Amino acid sequence: MTWIYFIDLLGTLVFAISGVLTAVEKKFDFVGAAILALVTAVGGGTLRDILIGNTPVGWMKDLNYILVISLALPICFFFKTRIQKWRKGIFLFDTIGIALFTILGMQKTLHLGLSPIIAVMMGIVSAVFGGVIRDVLANDIPLIFRKEIYASACLAGAVVYLVLDPLLPSMYAMMSSISVVFILRFLAVRNNWGVPFSPLR
Amino acid sequence: MTWIYFIDLLGTLVFAISGVLTAVEKKFDFVGAAILALVTAVGGGTLRDILIGNTPVGWMKDLNYILVISLALPICFFFKTRIQKWRKGIFLFDTIGIALFTILGMQKTLHLGLSPIIAVMMGIVSAVFGGVIRDVLANDIPLIFRKEIYASACLAGAVVYLVLDPLLPSMYAMMSSISVVFILRFLAVRNNWGVPFSPLR
Amino acid sequence: MTWIYFIDLLGTLVFAISGVLTAVEKKFDFVGAAILALVTAVGGGTLRDILIGNTPVGWMKDLNYILVISLALPICFFFKTRIQKWRKGIFLFDTIGIALFTILGMQKTLHLGLSPIIAVMMGIVSAVFGGVIRDVLANDIPLIFRKEIYASACLAGAVVYLVLDPLLPSMYAMMSSISVVFILRFLAVRNNWGVPFSPLR
Repeated sequence: MTWIYFIDLLGTLVFAISGVLTAVEKKFDFVGAAILALVTAVGGGTLRDILIGNTPVGWMKDLNYILVISLALPICFFFKTRIQKWRKGIFLFDTIGIALFTILGMQKTLHLGLSPIIAVMMGIVSAVFGGVIRDVLANDIPLIFRKEIYASACLAGAVVYLVLDPLLPSMYAMMSSISVVFILRFLAVRNNWGVPFSPLR
Repeated sequence: MTWIYFIDLLGTLVFAISGVLTAVEKKFDFVGAAILALVTAVGGGTLRDILIGNTPVGWMKDLNYILVISLALPICFFFKTRIQKWRKGIFLFDTIGIALFTILGMQKTLHLGLSPIIAVMMGIVSAVFGGVIRDVLANDIPLIFRKEIYASACLAGAVVYLVLDPLLPSMYAMMSSISVVFILRFLAVRNNWGVPFSPLR
Repeated sequence: MTWIYFIDLLGTLVFAISGVLTAVEKKFDFVGAAILALVTAVGGGTLRDILIGNTPVGWMKDLNYILVISLALPICFFFKTRIQKWRKGIFLFDTIGIALFTILGMQKTLHLGLSPIIAVMMGIVSAVFGGVIRDVLANDIPLIFRKEIYASACLAGAVVYLVLDPLLPSMYAMMSSISVVFILRFLAVRNNWGVPFSPLR
């Protein structure tokens, strides 16, 4: 389904931008920013692929991911101030991206015949560990360890998908799961439950 | 052998508790504590499995490990003060667990036809790297890099197992190896050679 | 080709020494220094092997790497002051080692049928991530994120190899690539563009 692929690439881009912004904040140079963009964007899916034995890891087989990630540096360079202004729009894509990463991570894990519990865990790993690796490389304590709404929203979305997938057409199950993640994060931002915009810090 | 399985699960639980205690100390939230419990408990074996190519990693195929790890949070919540009091008893299981992790890690590596030297290294990785990853995620310098008795005891136990396994029935070789690790750590605690209780810090 | 193997082992030794020197600086104990030597020396190649699915990872199948790494501790112990004095000579081997790690990493990746872009990335990972993991374990921000010449030289060498390998005999392509890395690092040191001696910090 092409819209899934499109959102996947868009989520990848938003994660890569988040890596560049962290690099700028930490005064990394160009190479450091490029590596942090890559690691933040593909780190979660890479760790999942390694853990479930799906190697060479996914992004090596489809260069569009590298292409999209390589756009993050010029985008941050030319649209520095606009990224601040567009935060709300980016927030939309970001949340959908996170939800989609979770679902795609679950699907890959279930395909290998692993248990649904492991699939939920691998879904969360896919969505969350790019940011964890980014924070470790930047010598910070990972953000999600201190503000739970981000990982909790993924967990809720993962469970919703797991329950609905056998009952509804796959598309509806995905839509419902994405909606749950989106609503939870929206409410969290509105009511100040946690981090408003974690991948872009 | 069921007692091996039992000690393996018990060691996993003690490692998970150590992750939760670190998380509490660092003021992580619930999700952070859960992730740190998991990573501390299975991190060493996971790294070993990835390095030797044994994927999907072991704990994905037996949900009892996840079950045991998920007990660490309520146990720490309800028995906070008693964990301090029971330290000596936990120390017993912990040391046996470490020794067993070392031996099991060696066995898995030898089964793949890798050299005994690599097996010894992978045994130590199995026992030690859960704590290393815990400390990296908590933004500390890994404890074992500063106090050597913990890893050295694993090394001694690994060598003993390697030497005795071809000479004695497997059970006796394991018992001897576990005894060596236990005695070394006991002496270290008594004579203040190093960290008394490293996984529980 | 035996001279390639020889330089590969020599580069491994220089990386291992760099791990020991970091460990000394951070007041690690013996075990910590040994682990940091290993991780610095084989970390980059190990990460590459894991990502491309080449497991068990390479150094497990040829014990000469472990042998060479185990020499780093006594060398640092007995020749502490001379290592400072010999810096220029070590710099020579180190730079050739880095260039060779890059090329060998690319070759392994291309052999698996992965794209040249991925091969360039994996070449850089092979040469650079041993130092990144060393710095993460020592609780520092990775050096290469702040001083780009080291990784940029690898990138230039990788591209040169990729372009020349189909045109020239493999040996000449490797020589040219190594020369480019060497000249770039030499100029960087001379003109103070970046870190003079990054693996040995």
